[in-house]
Amino acid sequence: MDKILKIGIVGCGAIGKDHCRRIMETVPGATVVAVSDYVAAAADETAAKYGIRSYGSDCKGMIADPEVEAVVITSIDPTHHDYVMETLKYEKWCFCEKPLSQNAKDCEEIMARELEIGKKLVQVGFMRRYDRGYAEMKRIIDSGEIGAPLLIKACHRNVSQGPGFKTENGITNVAIHELDICRWLLGDEYEDAQCVRVRQSSNSNKGYDNPQVVLLRTKKGCFIDVEVQVADGYGYDIQCEVVCENGTVKLPDPYAVVRRSRPDPAKDPGETMPIMTDWKERFIEAYDIELINWVASVNAGAITGPSAWDGYVACVAGDACNASRGTSQFMKVETIEKPELYK
Amino acid sequence: MDKILKIGIVGCGAIGKDHCRRIMETVPGATVVAVSDYVAAAADETAAKYGIRSYGSDCKGMIADPEVEAVVITSIDPTHHDYVMETLKYEKWCFCEKPLSQNAKDCEEIMARELEIGKKLVQVGFMRRYDRGYAEMKRIIDSGEIGAPLLIKACHRNVSQGPGFKTENGITNVAIHELDICRWLLGDEYEDAQCVRVRQSSNSNKGYDNPQVVLLRTKKGCFIDVEVQVADGYGYDIQCEVVCENGTVKLPDPYAVVRRSRPDPAKDPGETMPIMTDWKERFIEAYDIELINWVASVNAGAITGPSAWDGYVACVAGDACNASRGTSQFMKVETIEKPELYK
Amino acid sequence: MDKILKIGIVGCGAIGKDHCRRIMETVPGATVVAVSDYVAAAADETAAKYGIRSYGSDCKGMIADPEVEAVVITSIDPTHHDYVMETLKYEKWCFCEKPLSQNAKDCEEIMARELEIGKKLVQVGFMRRYDRGYAEMKRIIDSGEIGAPLLIKACHRNVSQGPGFKTENGITNVAIHELDICRWLLGDEYEDAQCVRVRQSSNSNKGYDNPQVVLLRTKKGCFIDVEVQVADGYGYDIQCEVVCENGTVKLPDPYAVVRRSRPDPAKDPGETMPIMTDWKERFIEAYDIELINWVASVNAGAITGPSAWDGYVACVAGDACNASRGTSQFMKVETIEKPELYK
Amino acid sequence: MDKILKIGIVGCGAIGKDHCRRIMETVPGATVVAVSDYVAAAADETAAKYGIRSYGSDCKGMIADPEVEAVVITSIDPTHHDYVMETLKYEKWCFCEKPLSQNAKDCEEIMARELEIGKKLVQVGFMRRYDRGYAEMKRIIDSGEIGAPLLIKACHRNVSQGPGFKTENGITNVAIHELDICRWLLGDEYEDAQCVRVRQSSNSNKGYDNPQVVLLRTKKGCFIDVEVQVADGYGYDIQCEVVCENGTVKLPDPYAVVRRSRPDPAKDPGETMPIMTDWKERFIEAYDIELINWVASVNAGAITGPSAWDGYVACVAGDACNASRGTSQFMKVETIEKPELYK
Repeated sequence: MDKILKIGIVGCGAIGKDHCRRIMETVPGATVVAVSDYVAAAADETAAKYGIRSYGSDCKGMIADPEVEAVVITSIDPTHHDYVMETLKYEKWCFCEKPLSQNAKDCEEIMARELEIGKKLVQVGFMRRYDRGYAEMKRIIDSGEIGAPLLIKACHRNVSQGPGFKTENGITNVAIHELDICRWLLGDEYEDAQCVRVRQSSNSNKGYDNPQVVLLRTKKGCFIDVEVQVADGYGYDIQCEVVCENGTVKLPDPYAVVRRSRPDPAKDPGETMPIMTDWKERFIEAYDIELINWVASVNAGAITGPSAWDGYVACVAGDACNASRGTSQFMKVETIEKPELYK
Repeated sequence: MDKILKIGIVGCGAIGKDHCRRIMETVPGATVVAVSDYVAAAADETAAKYGIRSYGSDCKGMIADPEVEAVVITSIDPTHHDYVMETLKYEKWCFCEKPLSQNAKDCEEIMARELEIGKKLVQVGFMRRYDRGYAEMKRIIDSGEIGAPLLIKACHRNVSQGPGFKTENGITNVAIHELDICRWLLGDEYEDAQCVRVRQSSNSNKGYDNPQVVLLRTKKGCFIDVEVQVADGYGYDIQCEVVCENGTVKLPDPYAVVRRSRPDPAKDPGETMPIMTDWKERFIEAYDIELINWVASVNAGAITGPSAWDGYVACVAGDACNASRGTSQFMKVETIEKPELYK
Repeated sequence: MDKILKIGIVGCGAIGKDHCRRIMETVPGATVVAVSDYVAAAADETAAKYGIRSYGSDCKGMIADPEVEAVVITSIDPTHHDYVMETLKYEKWCFCEKPLSQNAKDCEEIMARELEIGKKLVQVGFMRRYDRGYAEMKRIIDSGEIGAPLLIKACHRNVSQGPGFKTENGITNVAIHELDICRWLLGDEYEDAQCVRVRQSSNSNKGYDNPQVVLLRTKKGCFIDVEVQVADGYGYDIQCEVVCENGTVKLPDPYAVVRRSRPDPAKDPGETMPIMTDWKERFIEAYDIELINWVASVNAGAITGPSAWDGYVACVAGDACNASRGTSQFMKVETIEKPELYK
Repeated sequence: MDKILKIGIVGCGAIGKDHCRRIMETVPGATVVAVSDYVAAAADETAAKYGIRSYGSDCKGMIADPEVEAVVITSIDPTHHDYVMETLKYEKWCFCEKPLSQNAKDCEEIMARELEIGKKLVQVGFMRRYDRGYAEMKRIIDSGEIGAPLLIKACHRNVSQGPGFKTENGITNVAIHELDICRWLLGDEYEDAQCVRVRQSSNSNKGYDNPQVVLLRTKKGCFIDVEVQVADGYGYDIQCEVVCENGTVKLPDPYAVVRRSRPDPAKDPGETMPIMTDWKERFIEAYDIELINWVASVNAGAITGPSAWDGYVACVAGDACNASRGTSQFMKVETIEKPELYK
C-alpha cells in the first residue's frame, strides 16, 4: 500500500467528477492531485471540493506537470485523441474514456506511439469487462464447461439521447460497448459487420435511426446480433446471451426487489421486477472495480485492462457498421496486423 | 376403450356444470346420463344442453336409477354427507367435491359404511394432487433425491369471498386444500395444529379474520406454515415450498408471458409476469386430469385418488385449527385409528 | 353437441396415433371412423385398438369413403401434397400436418384447387398458434398496449435428428415452425430472408450444418433472428421474444418445479428449473387445443386456423432461406399475390 | 473531506482484518491508526501490513490512546461488552460487531452508560440493513404503496458451523440477523416468540438442533416465521418475503449468471442459477456501505445506524426464543421501557 498514484483529470463533466470522487474516496493506492477542463470554472469547482490544484482550462499544462503520474481523460469525445497523444508525449499512464478516438487512423497513431515507447500505457474505459455478470460469463466460456461459443444475442436499450445525436452515434457511442464486450467474451476478432435497416419506432422522429440491428461475424465464425435502441425505450436494459456448444450463459438482471401486487385496481395484478432508467446506475460497481484494477495494475507496472488495440478494434468495427448501413451486405472489418505488444 | 362409465350428477351449479362439460367433452370412458339439482330448473337446463335425462330436484331418485353407475356430487357443502351416504346405499362409485362432510363424525359414518361394504367407493375432489406442479414436487420428494422433507411453507391468497363467509370458512373452505396437499406431499399425518391470530388487513372489515396463519406439525415432526388470505389480496396466488434435508422444491407460477415495459409514463418500467385473479383458471388442467384419472380408475375397478380417509383427516385438522384460534397453543389433531382399507 | 364430425386418418405413425387418441378421447364433436397407412399393419393395429375400420394401405380408398367427412393427414412429408389433393377431389375438410408440400409449386396447386372450389377446406398443423404462450403474446401485440412490433428474436434447439437429416431440413422441418409463428405474431409478410453461415458445433459432424441462423425481414421492416440448433443441444428449448415500440413480450418457459439444491457434493449448489428434452411434450396442450378448435370450426362450417396460404408462405420462405445459404445476402421471399380467399 | 476519523481495531481475526482493509482502502474519511488482538502476533501482522501501530494484546491501552477517536470491536463474542464499556469510558465512538453482549443485562449496562453520557456512541454491526435488497424492501414498505406489513417469511440456511456450536447459537449467532432485520423492516417491536421443535435433518448429528423454526409476533400483531438451518444445507441461502395488505416484496437472489445446459450427459438439462456457499460473499457490498455510512455519520457527529437499543432487543428476543424451546408456547419478549435517546 506504499505507492500512491498521483492522477490528473482532464474534463470535469459528469463522468470526470464521478471518477474524481471514486479515486478520492473508493480506489486504494491513488489520489487526484490536479484537474482541468475546457471550461475553467468546472475544473476550479472540482479542485475546490477536494482541496487540490486546478489548472483551469490549461489541460496540456496539467498533463505536463511533473507531479502528475497518470492522466484520466474524461473530456468530450473529439478531444480524446489529442489528450492521449499529449499524455504519451511524457510517457505517462493514461486512462481514456471510450471512444479512444473519432476514427481508426487516430487510434493507429496512438498505437504507433505506444509501440515507439515499447509499452502499453493507455487503458480504454470499457468498464463492462469489470461487471461481475460479464466477468462470470467470460469465466464460464473460457473454462470450456459448456463448449466453444457460437453465437451472441445482445441488446442495448436506452431511454433518451442528448441533442445533436446522429444515427452513426448509435454505433460509435452506444453499441460500442457491445463491440468491445462481444469480442472479449469470445476471445475472437471480427471478420465482417452489417448494420441492418429495420422497422423504425414511431416514437423516434428526431432524425436518427432507432432501432438499429448490428450483425457481426468473427474470424472463427461466431455470429453476433445486437439490437440497438438509442432512445424512447421503456428503460435502460442491457441483455447478453452467449450460446455455446453445450449450453448458454446469460447476463443477469440487476439485483432488484421483486414485488407481487396490483399496482392499480383497474389493472391486473402481477409480479414485477423494476428495470433501471438511468444508465449510470447499471454498471456503477463495474466503474469502481475498473478503476481499482487500473490503479493496482499501474502501481504494479503493467496495465491489464482494455488497451489501445481494443479501442482501435471497436472503432474499426463501428466504422464498418456505419459504412454498411443501407447496403444489406456484410462489410469487412479491416484492421492492421495486431502488433506483438497487444497480444 | 370399451367401458363407458354412466354418471349421474347431483348439483348443477358452476362446478357441476363444469364437470358435466368435462365428462361429456374431455374425459374418455365416461358419459353423463342424468343430472339433478335442488333447483329443478338448473338440472333441466343442463340436461337439455346435452340431451340427457333430468331428474329435476329428485336427487335421490337419480342416485337410485339403475342406469347410473357412478355419482358426482357437486351440490352445496352441507348436503355432501347425505348424498354420499345415499350413493353408498346402492354401493355405487362416488366422486364428491370437497369437503366430504361438515364434521368429523359424518366423515366417520361414511368410512364406516365403506368398511361395511369392504371397498373404497368414494373419491374426494382434492384436485391439486393432479396439478403437474404438485405432482412433480411429490415425485421429487418421494425419490429421496433431496432427502427427507422437513418443512412446508405455503400460502393461499384470494381476491374475494361471497356473502355469509365466516372466519372458520377460511380453514374449512379455503385452507382445506393445503390441509390435504401438505400431508399428501409429506406422506405423513398431522400431530397438532394452531391457527395464529395475526395483524389484520385494514382492507378486511367484513366480520371475518383475514389473514390467518395455520401452523401444523406432523407425526414425524415436519412443520407447516400456511398463510391464508381469504379476500382483498392482489390476486389468486398459491405458493408452496417444501424444504428437504438437501434442498427445496417449489410450486411454479403458472405459464404466463413475461413483459418488459413501462405501463405508464409516470411510473417506473419493469419486467412483469401476470398473476391470476380467478381461482377457476389456476388448476383448470388439474380438474381435467383428476376426472380422467377417476374415470379410468373406476373403470379399472379400484379408485386411486383421495379417499374418504383423506376427506376425514382434512376435516379433523380443520376442526383443530378452528378450535385453537385465540389460544396461542397447538391443538391435537385426533383421528380414529386408520382402518386397514385406507392404508 | 349434436354434430359429430367423422374423420379418416392417413398415416398411423407416432403423430397419427397421437391425433387418433386425441380425437377419440379428448376432442369433443368428432370421432375417427377409419384409418389407413402406407404400412397396412400400422393401420390395422390402430383400427383394432379403437374398434374402427382399417383401410390398410388403401389411403385413397379411405379418403373416398362417403362416411369420411374430414381427413387428417399425418403420413410422411413427401406424400402430403397428393393426399391433400385427393381429399380436395371430394371437397372434404382436410387437416394436414406441416409441411403442406415439398415445394411452392405444389402448395400453389392446392390453393388453386381451393380457389376453384371457392372455399378454404385445408388447415395446416402449425400447432404453436394454439399454445397459450404464443397466443397471449399475439393478444398483447395486437392490443397495441406496447406499440407496434419491431423485432423478433427466436431460437429452436433440439437434442437430436433421425437418420437422413440434411442441412435444408433444418429450415423446412425445424425452423418452419418459426417461419409460420413469426409472421402470425407480426401480422405481416416476409420481404426477404438470409440463412447465415456460422461457427459450427464440434458436436455435429454428421454432414449437416448445425447451428444455422435465419434472418428475415418483413414488408413493414420488422427484423427476425432465428437460431436453429437441429441437434446436440442441451435440450429441447424454444424461445421467442418480440420487441415492440414500448416494451417486449417473451414466451414463458414451461410450467416446471424449481429446485434449490446441491445435486452433487463435488459441485456448486444452485437453483434449477428443468428443461425438456422431448419435443412432443413441449406443445402437448397446444395439439389438444388445435384439434378442438379445428373440429369446432369445421362443425361450424368455416376453418379459422392456419390455411393453405400459411402453409405456402412457410414453404416459400424456407426455400428462400435455403437458396441464400452461403451467399451472405438477403434473398427475396417471392410469393404469388395473396388471393382474396385467404385475406 | 477534511475530517479523517482515526480508528483503532480490537480483534484482528477474519472480520477484523477485513474491516481494516475496508477502512484503509474503500471507506472515505477514515483511517486505521492502531490495532490490537488477544493474540499479539495477529495484531502485529495486520499493523505491519499497513504500516500502523500495533498495541499487541494491550487492547485496553489501544482504546485509551488519545489518537484513537473511534473503536471497531471485532474480537470474540464474549468480550464485546467489556470493550464497548471500555470505549465508553473515554466517550469515544464505537462500532461493535454483533452480538452487542452475551445477555440482556450487559446490554442494559451499555445503554445506561450511553444515557449517562447523553449521546448514542455505539453502533452494532447489523450490516443487512445496508444491503440494497433489504433497504429497497424497507423503502417500499415505508412508502405505504402496498399497504401495512402483516407477515414475514424468512429463512437462513448455512453450509456448516465451527466446533463448539450449540443449539442456542442457532438463535444468538445465526438467526440474530433476522431478529434485527425483521423489526427494522416492520418498524415494530416484538411481543412474543417461540422456537418450534421440528423434524431434524439426518445430516445433522453433531449435538445441536437443526433445523429450528423461530416464530415471532410483534406489538402490532405481525407474524414472523424464520427457518433456521445452521449447517448441512445445500448452500448459504438467505430469503425474506414481507406480505403487506396489498402485495408482497421479496429479497432478490444475488446477481448471478444464468446457465442453460446439461451439466452431465446422464442427467436432465436445466436452467441453473448458482447459489453461494460462503456467507462472507453474500453481503459483501453491505459491509462496505455499512462502514461508509458509519464513518460519515460519526464525522457528522451523530450515528444513524443500529444502536445499542437494537443490539439489546435482538438479545432479549433471542433469549425468549431459547427459553421457549420445547414448550410449544409463545414466550414474552420483555424489554425495559425504550429510553427517549433511542426513539
